[in-house]
Amino acid sequence: MTFTSAVFDVETIELAGTRESIVRGGRHLFPLLPTALEGVDQIGVIGWGPQGRAQALNLRDSLADTAIEVVVGLRAGSSSRAEAEAEGLRVGDWLDVVASSQLVILLVADAATANNHEAIFERLQPGATLGLSHGFLVGHLRTVGASFPEDVNVIGVCPKGMGDSVRRLYLQGREINGAGINASFAVHQDVDGRATERALAWSIGLGSPYTFQTTLDSEYRSDIVGERAILLGAVHGIVESLYQRYRVEGDEPERAFARSAEAVTASIAPTISRDGLLGVRNAFEGEDLAAFDRAYAAGYGPFRDLVAEIYDEVDSGNELASVVLAGARLATSPMQPISGSPMWAAGASVRAARQEAAAAVSDPYTAGIFLAAMVAQVDLFAERGHPWSEIVNESVIEAVDSLLPYMHARDVAFMVDNCSTTARLGARKWGPRFSALLDQVISPIADNGLEISVTAAKDFGQHPVHVVLERLATLRPSVDISVG
Amino acid sequence: MTFTSAVFDVETIELAGTRESIVRGGRHLFPLLPTALEGVDQIGVIGWGPQGRAQALNLRDSLADTAIEVVVGLRAGSSSRAEAEAEGLRVGDWLDVVASSQLVILLVADAATANNHEAIFERLQPGATLGLSHGFLVGHLRTVGASFPEDVNVIGVCPKGMGDSVRRLYLQGREINGAGINASFAVHQDVDGRATERALAWSIGLGSPYTFQTTLDSEYRSDIVGERAILLGAVHGIVESLYQRYRVEGDEPERAFARSAEAVTASIAPTISRDGLLGVRNAFEGEDLAAFDRAYAAGYGPFRDLVAEIYDEVDSGNELASVVLAGARLATSPMQPISGSPMWAAGASVRAARQEAAAAVSDPYTAGIFLAAMVAQVDLFAERGHPWSEIVNESVIEAVDSLLPYMHARDVAFMVDNCSTTARLGARKWGPRFSALLDQVISPIADNGLEISVTAAKDFGQHPVHVVLERLATLRPSVDISVG
Repeated sequence: MTFTSAVFDVETIELAGTRESIVRGGRHLFPLLPTALEGVDQIGVIGWGPQGRAQALNLRDSLADTAIEVVVGLRAGSSSRAEAEAEGLRVGDWLDVVASSQLVILLVADAATANNHEAIFERLQPGATLGLSHGFLVGHLRTVGASFPEDVNVIGVCPKGMGDSVRRLYLQGREINGAGINASFAVHQDVDGRATERALAWSIGLGSPYTFQTTLDSEYRSDIVGERAILLGAVHGIVESLYQRYRVEGDEPERAFARSAEAVTASIAPTISRDGLLGVRNAFEGEDLAAFDRAYAAGYGPFRDLVAEIYDEVDSGNELASVVLAGARLATSPMQPISGSPMWAAGASVRAARQEAAAAVSDPYTAGIFLAAMVAQVDLFAERGHPWSEIVNESVIEAVDSLLPYMHARDVAFMVDNCSTTARLGARKWGPRFSALLDQVISPIADNGLEISVTAAKDFGQHPVHVVLERLATLRPSVDISVG
Repeated sequence: MTFTSAVFDVETIELAGTRESIVRGGRHLFPLLPTALEGVDQIGVIGWGPQGRAQALNLRDSLADTAIEVVVGLRAGSSSRAEAEAEGLRVGDWLDVVASSQLVILLVADAATANNHEAIFERLQPGATLGLSHGFLVGHLRTVGASFPEDVNVIGVCPKGMGDSVRRLYLQGREINGAGINASFAVHQDVDGRATERALAWSIGLGSPYTFQTTLDSEYRSDIVGERAILLGAVHGIVESLYQRYRVEGDEPERAFARSAEAVTASIAPTISRDGLLGVRNAFEGEDLAAFDRAYAAGYGPFRDLVAEIYDEVDSGNELASVVLAGARLATSPMQPISGSPMWAAGASVRAARQEAAAAVSDPYTAGIFLAAMVAQVDLFAERGHPWSEIVNESVIEAVDSLLPYMHARDVAFMVDNCSTTARLGARKWGPRFSALLDQVISPIADNGLEISVTAAKDFGQHPVHVVLERLATLRPSVDISVG
């Protein structure tokens, strides 16, 4: 895939033998936004979830010196209205804002998108641009046999991080030009030849350090699989299993928590962010290094098979169908929180006592297992043909620079209990599969050297992901991530 | 539903306020089989898995004094040929046997059924009867938009137990008339008015103590859901979770195994078989009784929600679609066994040291949790409109009289690793969900009295299932089940 722009510099980078066109961001480019957004007087951001809030505020700030206004569209009676207005944003009824905007960025929940897309489509101006931040609607329209209006552009700009991170790193970008969350962009429908410029402007306005190209289909698959695997489901399942393992080995709750959840969020994630995946392995030596290697080798094959299963379920539409079926049940019987188990009580006590020294606890078994799951996802995405920028952002960068820092502050269980319904259902469905795989298959292999034939891990040291990560790290400044 | 027979006595029984027509079995009825099977000179049993073997041998023995021959159909080069011939059965190429039989009982694996149904249908004689032992093919034909030939009967006789039990209890029936595995029957297509008599004869010939009516659709849903829930997936998930719980509490592996898996297979299952579900609760008093009640109350709601999810996935076709997707992956990357974890090593040592005294270990927490899952399935099946015979056979009787005794002899993990691909995939998919629910939701509720709103359990003592079980127990002799 390749693209051109009359406004922004397009660079070609080489990643693991493939070439990708990208655009770097930065505040120095904000003066170019009105040119790229020519014909847009008003940007309507529909919804005030974490992404809606972050994107509305970032775009408002980035366009502060221009004539383009950012307006927030909310449903009548929305409890978010006061908060949006307190931020100085104009708020209107969501369908009115759809009708009066030339760029409509649709950031309401999946269920609301599914149930209201016809009303939204009817109100779009001819020639308007409809913006999405993930591919859900594309999948949903295919499922129900519907399509986008023919007279509008349809584009995607998909930040590779939570809404909170999109805003926070943007604010940090005031001090360090270019700090932000990377984003992919996609042109799904281009009726006037302006779709690419508008998408790039939107992404740069959000503060994306660099923007890479994908399709909404590819984004959808990697996004939904990623949150069910390494971004959320796998993290949850792996740390639950490891906590039990360390408890059975005799650890007190706090120590078991420190060796499992805390090791991932406080030690492994920042090490990857700073020194790449190799940095994690390089921190071990002797017996610990051997334990890391054994865990990695045992975990890689079973995890890759599980990620393949998740991918097939998402790709076939089964996963989305399950989410729809769950919606009907949840109306009468809501999901129970998962945060009541002793593990997460231990987590609260670990966080209360948290000090830099404690945060540095690592564990070679935890590290080997976690990296095995991460690289399994990387390789499966590569096998299924995703571009390397998407692979690495969705499997590594989003994890270590957005989600894991948040989980470190709030807890993994809190994150599962408080994310979107689609992600929460996915984490609760697949997390236990990662746990069971670890308990029943991987740990026995690692502990006993069981001879079980599994998809073999490539040599970790030679894995192409290391070079890709290093190359992508040059595209943005190094920032210590803060979480409020 | 109701039916009549010109050959066998049809009784009406009342179960929880509903009426069902049933037929009792017994060896004294074998002389009536030729009348009911009029027009059938040859019964072709296609396949030699556990059901194929058991059904071919039982029918051969039941029809020994008649002119009706039972012939086994196998694929060229089948490794089962020698075993079938050693049992004195004539063996032919499977499609030839289909073509030469008037009753064709199709007992090959689901994948083989799916891939070869057209070849089989082409060879069926006009007016022949096609017999199935579960509803898989009906679901598959619906999925692919195909249908049965119009000129054949299509019937189901579905034993509510494993093939091994179908044979073993039949042999025990030589001493105790009527011992056997209950079966449901269904008439899916009746071109000559003989379908019901043939189904009843087939069932009586298998040794079913009593035969009740269902549809292949209803059978399919309860069968596939049941094996994913209380018959296999739930057992596996529950004992894995409880083993870890007891290990963390400080139990040595053998004791933790005795309180989890062994408690279910050696104590709870035979108690239910002998004294019903109430017998399990009545064995506890004081603190233990309170622990049982707390576990039951905490478990019921979450388990019921999970069984509802499984039911929706099966009913919608998602579950079958997943099995098909898995088939493609398994061709290159087979499932790994789950039996390598320390729990199952402890099981081997418990079995080696097994004595009657040890086998009587029970645990009120394990019992309350297990019965909560069992009754949750009963209630969900009732909510979805299944007949009570089907509900109780698929949720209680098949578990305690067939599968759990087998698991007691061979281990739960062995059972998961050695059942049909469809069941194995299901157990590995849903078992971890039962574990996670127990770890993350149910045990915290039971342990801490957490105020979490869940579907409330009905009063256990007043549950209609007790009366139904008692009534059904009168339909067959009490037999101590032996497992080889």
